[in-house]
Amino acid sequence: MRFVSRTSSDGVTEQLFTLSSAFGDVPGVLWTPDGVPGPRPLILLGHGGGQHKKAPGMAERARRFAAECGYAAVAVDAPAHGDRPREEDHDRVIAELRDRMRTGGEAAPVLAEFHALLAAQSVPEWRAVLDAVQELDRVGTGPVGYWGVSLGCALGIPFIAAEPRIRAAVLGLNGVDTSAGAAGQITVPLEFLVQWDDERVPRAASLALFDLFASAEKTLHANPGGHAEVPAHELDSALRFFTRHLGRRPGAPGAS
Amino acid sequence: MRFVSRTSSDGVTEQLFTLSSAFGDVPGVLWTPDGVPGPRPLILLGHGGGQHKKAPGMAERARRFAAECGYAAVAVDAPAHGDRPREEDHDRVIAELRDRMRTGGEAAPVLAEFHALLAAQSVPEWRAVLDAVQELDRVGTGPVGYWGVSLGCALGIPFIAAEPRIRAAVLGLNGVDTSAGAAGQITVPLEFLVQWDDERVPRAASLALFDLFASAEKTLHANPGGHAEVPAHELDSALRFFTRHLGRRPGAPGAS
Repeated sequence: MRFVSRTSSDGVTEQLFTLSSAFGDVPGVLWTPDGVPGPRPLILLGHGGGQHKKAPGMAERARRFAAECGYAAVAVDAPAHGDRPREEDHDRVIAELRDRMRTGGEAAPVLAEFHALLAAQSVPEWRAVLDAVQELDRVGTGPVGYWGVSLGCALGIPFIAAEPRIRAAVLGLNGVDTSAGAAGQITVPLEFLVQWDDERVPRAASLALFDLFASAEKTLHANPGGHAEVPAHELDSALRFFTRHLGRRPGAPGAS
Repeated sequence: MRFVSRTSSDGVTEQLFTLSSAFGDVPGVLWTPDGVPGPRPLILLGHGGGQHKKAPGMAERARRFAAECGYAAVAVDAPAHGDRPREEDHDRVIAELRDRMRTGGEAAPVLAEFHALLAAQSVPEWRAVLDAVQELDRVGTGPVGYWGVSLGCALGIPFIAAEPRIRAAVLGLNGVDTSAGAAGQITVPLEFLVQWDDERVPRAASLALFDLFASAEKTLHANPGGHAEVPAHELDSALRFFTRHLGRRPGAPGAS
């Protein structure tokens, strides 16, 4: 793990890093509250399709987790996203996906293939990132949560199913068509976001995915509007959800 | 409005009262935080079928609204519930409902008839209760919310549709079969609770009711489990929802 830059503002330090992996270099960002030693809870943030580790929504969430909850947060560019190269396989599937969307063909099976292709890389990458950041003094081996919607949900599901260190997750904006496999192996508390008028994910596919999770505690939050219109109060809710399951907040960043 | 008793514990005063109405005496309870003058936000609490104004869940919710949010809360016995007499019409419909449930007949139309019968009384009664408590110095004309699930939802929907003083509501555990009429006239922010394995309300009927509300801000919260198994964290969520829409909390009861 190689840190390449470090900036600090509003009480939160942001560090860009590169992690070497079997699939090449993985570029990432780590956010931590200034001046408070670890260990602390950690949130892994999975970005949406076509986005990247520092998309505005990602940085906003990460900064709130650090400043308001006292957490560390980390994001990486998913395979074929952000600063990472696309492989031939990625290009082929993306071209097929665009073609089906243009011609009104059935996109779900191709999207599922794309997600499976990316997940084969991203699951071991996330585990390597988690290993590396937990070795840092300012992160340590505190409880870990995962936040990811849309692509971040599709890649999060097989990761959470495979990774016992994840203790709670906020997922959503994704349907059963592309994520059925590992969902039934997930048992940690979940908050699952559905956009009631999602133009990309059929409502029934969202509800069917929620149904599959084996978690005893899972709450579906549905709000009106399209795929990109999750209301701001859901981020407040996510902060409280993680506080309930991972701890720390009253008087965060440092407080008990 | 005649107060018949007054007790105080843990910073919350509880007063039993009787309000005279066109349908006879309506027995109720008012909870207010001790020693803080009004006006303050007010929550009207509608109880479930077969319950009453002081059922344990009702009192717990009311005390938390008073102690944690600085609100007043009021509950009354719904028609044919608690200390109120049953009319002949009530007995007839209840007998028919029990008969259909025993024989596996279709209960929904009879339940809808029962709810309509009760709502014809409870809507004007709730308005009279609201008029009366808003005249009290320790309540006053602050913003008003409504909390009611199951029967409390079925009777709340026509009331909220008819009463412009209601500014936000938590509803749920009820389906479109018995509440379709007025739902489309409701435009205030809503939090709507669904039990994913509700043995009394079909899931599709719950989702269809949520769909009908005309509110720009409405959030469906679905949790696993049966009709009576709403998880405790949903009351925390309701407190935050009302705080967001009706105000007061940081440093409640009295604080700005």
